Amino acid sequence: MERYDIAIIGTGPGGLEAAITAKVRNKNVLLLGSKTSSLKVEKAHEILNYLGLPNIKGSDLQKAFLSHAESMGVEITDDRVIAIYPLGDYFGIQARDGMYEASSIILATGVVMSKPYPGENEFLGKGVSYCATCDAALYKDKVTAIIGSSPKEEEEANFMSEYASKVLYFPLYKEETSTNDKVEVIHETPKEILGDTIVHTLRTDQNDYTVDGVFVLREAVSPGQLLSGLETSGPHVVVDINMTTNIPGVFACGDIAGTPYQYIKAAGQGNIATLSAVNYLTTLKK
Amino acid sequence: MERYDIAIIGTGPGGLEAAITAKVRNKNVLLLGSKTSSLKVEKAHEILNYLGLPNIKGSDLQKAFLSHAESMGVEITDDRVIAIYPLGDYFGIQARDGMYEASSIILATGVVMSKPYPGENEFLGKGVSYCATCDAALYKDKVTAIIGSSPKEEEEANFMSEYASKVLYFPLYKEETSTNDKVEVIHETPKEILGDTIVHTLRTDQNDYTVDGVFVLREAVSPGQLLSGLETSGPHVVVDINMTTNIPGVFACGDIAGTPYQYIKAAGQGNIATLSAVNYLTTLKK
Repeated sequence: MERYDIAIIGTGPGGLEAAITAKVRNKNVLLLGSKTSSLKVEKAHEILNYLGLPNIKGSDLQKAFLSHAESMGVEITDDRVIAIYPLGDYFGIQARDGMYEASSIILATGVVMSKPYPGENEFLGKGVSYCATCDAALYKDKVTAIIGSSPKEEEEANFMSEYASKVLYFPLYKEETSTNDKVEVIHETPKEILGDTIVHTLRTDQNDYTVDGVFVLREAVSPGQLLSGLETSGPHVVVDINMTTNIPGVFACGDIAGTPYQYIKAAGQGNIATLSAVNYLTTLKK
Repeated sequence: MERYDIAIIGTGPGGLEAAITAKVRNKNVLLLGSKTSSLKVEKAHEILNYLGLPNIKGSDLQKAFLSHAESMGVEITDDRVIAIYPLGDYFGIQARDGMYEASSIILATGVVMSKPYPGENEFLGKGVSYCATCDAALYKDKVTAIIGSSPKEEEEANFMSEYASKVLYFPLYKEETSTNDKVEVIHETPKEILGDTIVHTLRTDQNDYTVDGVFVLREAVSPGQLLSGLETSGPHVVVDINMTTNIPGVFACGDIAGTPYQYIKAAGQGNIATLSAVNYLTTLKK
């Protein structure tokens, strides 16, 4: 398996700046995220304080970011990271579409604004999962609930319906849904995940649903769940001024590294994170 | 005297980003520096990794920065800060052209790469000065040496010649000099400042010059000299992830806040510094 120098998780301004700086430094970089950069940037109405690009619409800033990255030969691998494992002098990255290896990691996933559901952390791995593609086969002929934070999760629900006997899909967004007819769309708000040793019920604001598994599909997995042992503070990874986390070889930048949630701040931190990763790679070779 | 909410010292990417973010937050901001932003930016050949502005010449990046700031109504006050004094719940700022007051300070001066001359710190205020305009009157009919790091210091030498009996000017740059005929230009490299209780000699690589005062005119004054009691580490101000220094109400960003010396990093930190200053101003009002 190819061993990348730096794996960057996330394609907002922090991740993209980290990637172009890695290119400048001739590092072999894996950039995992979305080919459309960041939904948050795209949907921003108007950004006044990204120095050098005055009064710019989010969608235009997104284009400027992506075309800059493309001009530097940065490729985006459209995948979703589920977990990261430290394996001595490198890291294993478990993603929806496969496994990757890298000598260092930059977390630029953005921040999960929502709190976990009651029961979510308790039953993680015991009926609660963050990746339908990964775990669908475990739910053959079973009943699963999928909580989707954006329309792109509908594909996950469709895929799940190839295995499960029943798929209940709870969209957390306002856009119309378009799933296949084996997926039952329910417009209720999930409130709690209940179980004994394993999950048995998803409770909404209106009903209890008997299920074998609950898939919580958010834009980003919370950092402590992504990488065990990572020091966090609320929804943020704890970093120092060099964007170094408590785990050697792991760096963070952008919203996940704390407030303020600002694009130019995320980009600046992405630059620092890569240069710190480059320093770390040098120590590895000694 | 007008009391500004935030005084920003320095007009590179850190200072300019700090200023536009202060405008977004409706703060009354004083931006002290150079109307041409930063010499370092202007002279940069090509910048590859300022996300959103691919493959840009330094002079074009400078224009983009300045026109963004102008479009937001940011005004640059062309002045040089000599010292900052904490005065309870505000700061006094002593500059070449006058005094200013502000409730909070953002240091974005860039970094002084050169070490102080032997004797410089020892005789500061005892014949060593950083501001000819401020102290020229003290040297009426005396002999002064001026060490100039850039052609704009020649004006300081000319001004000094209106008071001093003799002005020796040591340019540290390669450009041709153009001073008035009362200023003697000497192309030697200053090495040491000597004195007893006060300065009596400037030693160069070739000669000893008997002088009453030595003016060391650099692009930036080192941070510990600018603000007494400020925690520094080598040429840098010590900051935390929020760009907070050890002095309440004083923040720092860009090169002065540490490596890497990168434009996007400076801008990102300028954004954080202002938002931290805004939080500080809120606590003042309580």
